[in-house]
Amino acid sequence: MLRPLRLASRRLVSNTEAKLTRAGPLKALRACRYSSTSPPTGSHSRLPLLAFAAGSILSGSIGYYLANRSSDSALDELAQLTLHPASTDSGLNERYGTPADFREAIEELKRSFPDEDTVTTDSDDLEVHGNSENDYHPGSLPSVVVFPRSTEDVVKIVKISRKYRMPVIPYSGATSLEGHYRAPASGSICVDMSHMDKILEIHEADSDLVCQPGARWMDINAMLKQKGIPLFFPLDPAPGATIGGMVSTGCSGTNAVRYGTAKAEWFLNLTVVLPNGEVIKTRRRSRKSSAGFDTTKLFVGAEGTLGIITEVTIRLAPLLPTNVAVCHFPDVKKATEAVSEIMNQGVGIQCVELVDDDFMRSTNLFGMSQRKWPEKDSLFFKFQGPTPTALKETARIVRAVSERHGGFGFTLAASEKEANDLWADRKNALYSGLALVEGCKGWSTDVCVPVSQDIAQSGIVSTIVGHVGDGNFHALLLFKTDEELAIIRDLVHRMVERAIDMDGTCTGEHGVGIGKREYLYDELGAGTVELMKTIKRTLDPLNLFNPGKLYPSKPETEPHLVASTPRASESTR
Amino acid sequence: MLRPLRLASRRLVSNTEAKLTRAGPLKALRACRYSSTSPPTGSHSRLPLLAFAAGSILSGSIGYYLANRSSDSALDELAQLTLHPASTDSGLNERYGTPADFREAIEELKRSFPDEDTVTTDSDDLEVHGNSENDYHPGSLPSVVVFPRSTEDVVKIVKISRKYRMPVIPYSGATSLEGHYRAPASGSICVDMSHMDKILEIHEADSDLVCQPGARWMDINAMLKQKGIPLFFPLDPAPGATIGGMVSTGCSGTNAVRYGTAKAEWFLNLTVVLPNGEVIKTRRRSRKSSAGFDTTKLFVGAEGTLGIITEVTIRLAPLLPTNVAVCHFPDVKKATEAVSEIMNQGVGIQCVELVDDDFMRSTNLFGMSQRKWPEKDSLFFKFQGPTPTALKETARIVRAVSERHGGFGFTLAASEKEANDLWADRKNALYSGLALVEGCKGWSTDVCVPVSQDIAQSGIVSTIVGHVGDGNFHALLLFKTDEELAIIRDLVHRMVERAIDMDGTCTGEHGVGIGKREYLYDELGAGTVELMKTIKRTLDPLNLFNPGKLYPSKPETEPHLVASTPRASESTR
Repeated sequence: MLRPLRLASRRLVSNTEAKLTRAGPLKALRACRYSSTSPPTGSHSRLPLLAFAAGSILSGSIGYYLANRSSDSALDELAQLTLHPASTDSGLNERYGTPADFREAIEELKRSFPDEDTVTTDSDDLEVHGNSENDYHPGSLPSVVVFPRSTEDVVKIVKISRKYRMPVIPYSGATSLEGHYRAPASGSICVDMSHMDKILEIHEADSDLVCQPGARWMDINAMLKQKGIPLFFPLDPAPGATIGGMVSTGCSGTNAVRYGTAKAEWFLNLTVVLPNGEVIKTRRRSRKSSAGFDTTKLFVGAEGTLGIITEVTIRLAPLLPTNVAVCHFPDVKKATEAVSEIMNQGVGIQCVELVDDDFMRSTNLFGMSQRKWPEKDSLFFKFQGPTPTALKETARIVRAVSERHGGFGFTLAASEKEANDLWADRKNALYSGLALVEGCKGWSTDVCVPVSQDIAQSGIVSTIVGHVGDGNFHALLLFKTDEELAIIRDLVHRMVERAIDMDGTCTGEHGVGIGKREYLYDELGAGTVELMKTIKRTLDPLNLFNPGKLYPSKPETEPHLVASTPRASESTR
Repeated sequence: MLRPLRLASRRLVSNTEAKLTRAGPLKALRACRYSSTSPPTGSHSRLPLLAFAAGSILSGSIGYYLANRSSDSALDELAQLTLHPASTDSGLNERYGTPADFREAIEELKRSFPDEDTVTTDSDDLEVHGNSENDYHPGSLPSVVVFPRSTEDVVKIVKISRKYRMPVIPYSGATSLEGHYRAPASGSICVDMSHMDKILEIHEADSDLVCQPGARWMDINAMLKQKGIPLFFPLDPAPGATIGGMVSTGCSGTNAVRYGTAKAEWFLNLTVVLPNGEVIKTRRRSRKSSAGFDTTKLFVGAEGTLGIITEVTIRLAPLLPTNVAVCHFPDVKKATEAVSEIMNQGVGIQCVELVDDDFMRSTNLFGMSQRKWPEKDSLFFKFQGPTPTALKETARIVRAVSERHGGFGFTLAASEKEANDLWADRKNALYSGLALVEGCKGWSTDVCVPVSQDIAQSGIVSTIVGHVGDGNFHALLLFKTDEELAIIRDLVHRMVERAIDMDGTCTGEHGVGIGKREYLYDELGAGTVELMKTIKRTLDPLNLFNPGKLYPSKPETEPHLVASTPRASESTR
């Protein structure tokens, strides 16, 4: 998927500097230079995508427009939190603590964690944890940042947050594009999991691994490779993403076409600190279980609103030989038709990514590719197979099907280095995309396929990169002027609405956070949203866990799922 | 997996006769004749399985012992339901209706569904729906059986059940081995989904399909084949299993090693009638979504306790060419070591099933096989691949790895017919197993691997068949005398306890129902069980939906997850 556009804060304190520089894209981003380009063409060719899109995953877009559209209600809610802790329809009477309560809470946190670098109210720390340049969602600075080192530390923090009615906001990889870690105006405790990044157990024979939530998927895979263990974790969102954030966002990535998403069976068991301070393990380590409904799944995609994850057992997959190929097509329609047929062959496809002609142009302009590409809509394939024979067989079939659909210039990597070079061109999507317009800004979107039609009409400069095997596309929309901004707003809104009209989703893999809340009633219907909110109220009656995220305010017209609201009589706990 | 041992009722009414005879195994079972055999040997060879078992899926056993062990508490609870509708620790004051209320409910059902064959109190119907010869769990007859034809019908039934406080028990394939559809002594409405078995939409381009819950997975795959659509639904539990029951049980089957289980991403969207009578759709049809936590998963494995499923969108997989092979091993240890290595090759394995020497002996005795097998521990493989070349490549690798681990007599099917014949020997496991002891009874178990060690010591005649790729094994334990019964009780109890000790599960794919309730606190811990019960109470405060299943009574010593119990003030609905 596209790397998140996250710029470094000018004022970094050591511990966050460490975290930020671990996230490779940042340096790359700072390094990258823009150059001018000619306006995009060939957009007409993307029109037929609509046909391919219908019914496959249609995910709405994030970005400036959504940020703005939702910012009013989101800001209102965040601003109101001090008075109305729960979403306005929760029927709860509880209030958050007063500023005095919060000052006491911070003092108690400092007493509970006497060592220097666990509790900080340093303005630089608050700045880094309260802001994101990934997106344009509203938010405030947290009142304090705590860096727990264990489940017990998290329990301590949660008990203090309950005692003083002070919201807690979990924070890990900070790669969110939807404002997941924005702090409410009420004041809050930011719980930074970056010190909980250990790998605790590796069970090679069982193909699983136990780690803390701050561990990064890329670091885990690098460690396995370095130890010579022929296994890997296949969920591959943004490079800086951590396991805890990946669980909470319900992530996926380019490997989803072969391995599925966070909602499949990769997260076997979670240790979770619940809003009442209790610690649960959602399951055992076993690969299969039918012991009731899977409470692990309750926390996958819950965005930290139902509990704070402190330990995760992840399932690993065999690391197989791969190879990379690129093939060009006369238009996107032909390319997507080829993908449809290829996906039904059952050949070893680990990834299949569609890029458009503008992307190929931007890659040439970016100048970091080993070759000059034909500026045509293209497919990047990653094959996997047990043997060179199997990989050749797959390449042969994919080439044949592609050429039947007008594919040409099929390039198969002849060495591991060439494979890495080819794939790097796809992975540089964000940075190369920015090369299209000098001094532009860009918005990474998580879009439904028909975007191409809209972009064609809008004249906005953009590149499209798609997890086409899942029908999940991203576009990078470029702008410089307010006029272009206004166009992008309408563009993105149309995309989301069409996604939902076409039985799709407003968010394929970036989550809800603040940016997509307003769309949930349309997408899921009132009953399902109320079901989610009922569970939230039951587990977190004080609405202390990441308030203002995920759950939209209730349209007045909508019925309640459960008319009776659970009382949260703290006294009985 | 093993077909359920379900004998035909002697007194069948037409509509249930139709259903029962659709379930092929019944006739086969009635037809099958037993013959005597020599006592089993070679059990010592299974001891080392322990090593392989550790940490892979270790599932406890169902059967007479568990039925008995849990029957007291289960019977108590079921008997008490009239007085204590919710589980004894729910803190609810509601009562179920009186017998007079229930008589009125039945009258209202008859008025609401005037046509002849929708509502029945015929004693034969009640008998068929209240009893199961799959297992030995306690239960009563339902008061009435209703055959809805639509979601609207189910809503009507649920509203009547709420009005008269009369429990509803969903009933579909009736292949449960854990008493999932047992009726409470309080009286109840059995909701038989067998008339809701339609396939509503087929989206070939999107590889999904929308159907009613009474549709059988085997009928769906047969229909797709007959229409020439090269797709199939890969979850393959008992042949008679319906989609609704498969969702509710959290099923899997022999294909799980390649395709995962019901808890993966095969059930995309559910239409559910909630206990408050509201109808929700859990998701859209899109393949990927990160729009909050996945409420679909709340109903997967919930065993009808949180809602009644009335429509399901299932994802389909490409139907690939397959081939079948069999290989024999000197002992189970060698066979399982081979499987471990084969599973890390990344070759196209759709199924890998371990059978023991006793199974091979029983297959020879059963006399329906096309060949006489060496009576050795063996592996049955189903390969899948895009082309004959790929299938040959897979067979070559599997044979080489197997022979490295002492495998011999590798038999690769040379034709589709031979492949079907070979696989039939595996699929006949239950019927051939019964051939080992003349006039014996058998219990299908869902066991942890170390069972073999216990069986070896017990001297009980048995066969073992395992989804070895997942570490999930079944055993068929044979007995004739009470002494053997007593031995089996201890045997099974030890297996379950060891499964949980080894970080495994008490139920790999058969669900909890009545039989496994008592183990949930041990397996999941109090916090997680209380979380499940809290959600149950919140959605079904009257405990009307399949009461007495899944949720165990709370050990007095255990803490509450959420001290406050949601009030269910009906008046406000």
